[in-house]
Amino acid sequence: MMDNEQFNLWINEIAQDRSRGASELARRCLTMLADLAQTLPGHDPITFKQHLTDSAQRLAAIRPSMAPIQNLLTRWQQALYDLADSDVETLRYNAVERALQLVEASHKAVTAIAQHSADHIGYGKTLLTHSLSSTVVAVCQQLKDRQLKMIITESRPLCEGRRLGEILSRLAIPTRYITEAQIGLFISQADAVLVGADSVLADGSIINKVGTYLVALAARDHQVPFYTCHESFKRRLVPTELDLEEMATTELHLPQWPHVTPRNIYFDITPAHLISGWITEQGVAMASGL
Amino acid sequence: MMDNEQFNLWINEIAQDRSRGASELARRCLTMLADLAQTLPGHDPITFKQHLTDSAQRLAAIRPSMAPIQNLLTRWQQALYDLADSDVETLRYNAVERALQLVEASHKAVTAIAQHSADHIGYGKTLLTHSLSSTVVAVCQQLKDRQLKMIITESRPLCEGRRLGEILSRLAIPTRYITEAQIGLFISQADAVLVGADSVLADGSIINKVGTYLVALAARDHQVPFYTCHESFKRRLVPTELDLEEMATTELHLPQWPHVTPRNIYFDITPAHLISGWITEQGVAMASGL
Repeated sequence: MMDNEQFNLWINEIAQDRSRGASELARRCLTMLADLAQTLPGHDPITFKQHLTDSAQRLAAIRPSMAPIQNLLTRWQQALYDLADSDVETLRYNAVERALQLVEASHKAVTAIAQHSADHIGYGKTLLTHSLSSTVVAVCQQLKDRQLKMIITESRPLCEGRRLGEILSRLAIPTRYITEAQIGLFISQADAVLVGADSVLADGSIINKVGTYLVALAARDHQVPFYTCHESFKRRLVPTELDLEEMATTELHLPQWPHVTPRNIYFDITPAHLISGWITEQGVAMASGL
Repeated sequence: MMDNEQFNLWINEIAQDRSRGASELARRCLTMLADLAQTLPGHDPITFKQHLTDSAQRLAAIRPSMAPIQNLLTRWQQALYDLADSDVETLRYNAVERALQLVEASHKAVTAIAQHSADHIGYGKTLLTHSLSSTVVAVCQQLKDRQLKMIITESRPLCEGRRLGEILSRLAIPTRYITEAQIGLFISQADAVLVGADSVLADGSIINKVGTYLVALAARDHQVPFYTCHESFKRRLVPTELDLEEMATTELHLPQWPHVTPRNIYFDITPAHLISGWITEQGVAMASGL
């Protein structure tokens, strides 16, 4: 049986997570909702549906910088809404099914993105990426037998780059690991930049791990193309006020000095004019004029 | 008595230092040479002079990215060269004197730079700096009673920003401390960037702690002026092949993965066209067209 305590643990898991990207967390939220729908006691269909909808809204509100969570959970709520209020067991079955279908569709989209990206990038290339994107990892898997080389950043403060380094080493992809500060030195050794995106705004600007904007500036200054790969559901459905999440400054492990305020904002915005192309499951959209 | 072991300890101190900037290390080298001149046993003037010159050359070769060390030590050697090979004790006296005069001149230059910078920057401003420059600290001391606010970077891998945070807090200057990745988010909150320089090239480009180039790109993109303050002897006297020092990658504390090569280059080059002004003891030189 699903109790409130379990749900609060899930809320906490999503709130605390610093290593999974937006797509992975969106899929994780859907499997949580499938579990919830599976185990929630049901007295009448309307209360049952309302409980599921409320839970989806609670999950969707936790990570405001990550559009996919809001978007996928909105789609799931829409599906629930469209279901007749027949009986609890039919509702339960369909709610679980729909959540798992959305997870499956997301996995398929990542596979398609990886293929489009790999075809676009081609043989024997060096890519620079920032932070850890599961979609970029999927691209690396596609390209690992095509002489791919990677340049990766550590991605302070929690160094997701370390997890990426471990993954790429296991794939036997020759990889250089640098601090963020070295991006400007190594950009000229990359054939292209490839990053994921936590959200894509209406004009094509992306919200992604903080530092992505600096990568884009360096790429532009060295005329290195800058691509972002992401599922199309990362587009923000409705323009919302931008909310760049800030995490606990304890992650910086600083002493307390009376006049010093540490800041730990996790995301920045890379404007569309610095982006050469957007790669989704539908294909590659190049910036006009390129 | 000065033995070889002591000198090797000094060599090691300069080689290992990651927290002092180029000016401080240049002055430290001069006090080492003064100590050496003071204590070196002297049999004949020519051997004595040769020993001092060789020692200066050994010190000057340790930190190739730091022009001031080479420049100040070259000046000291020039002074030695100009001295008559009279007797060891006269040579000794003059060698010590000349080293201490150069140290004193450097301190006076820093004071003059701080005054020029403070006058140029003015009242109630927010400055963003990167890494730790003793010259920038001198500017902050000048401006601390003029409502200065600072934004400082941690400066991975060894986080010199922590030492700077501690210093600024002691000066009661309101300071925000950010990771390098957040430079693009905070640049718009700065009225200007002020950084030191480890070397200044003939065309005005600067070699400084790695990441400075990214700060300059972000500043240009937000139309925030980017100033560098440095003693005029940081100019490279002779154009030399650029040597951007790389330090031990153990500083990154990474596990060993077979296909991953960590890199730890300490300096980058900020091209002159991204620099708004150069502040030396002689005054402020603005970029043409600004």
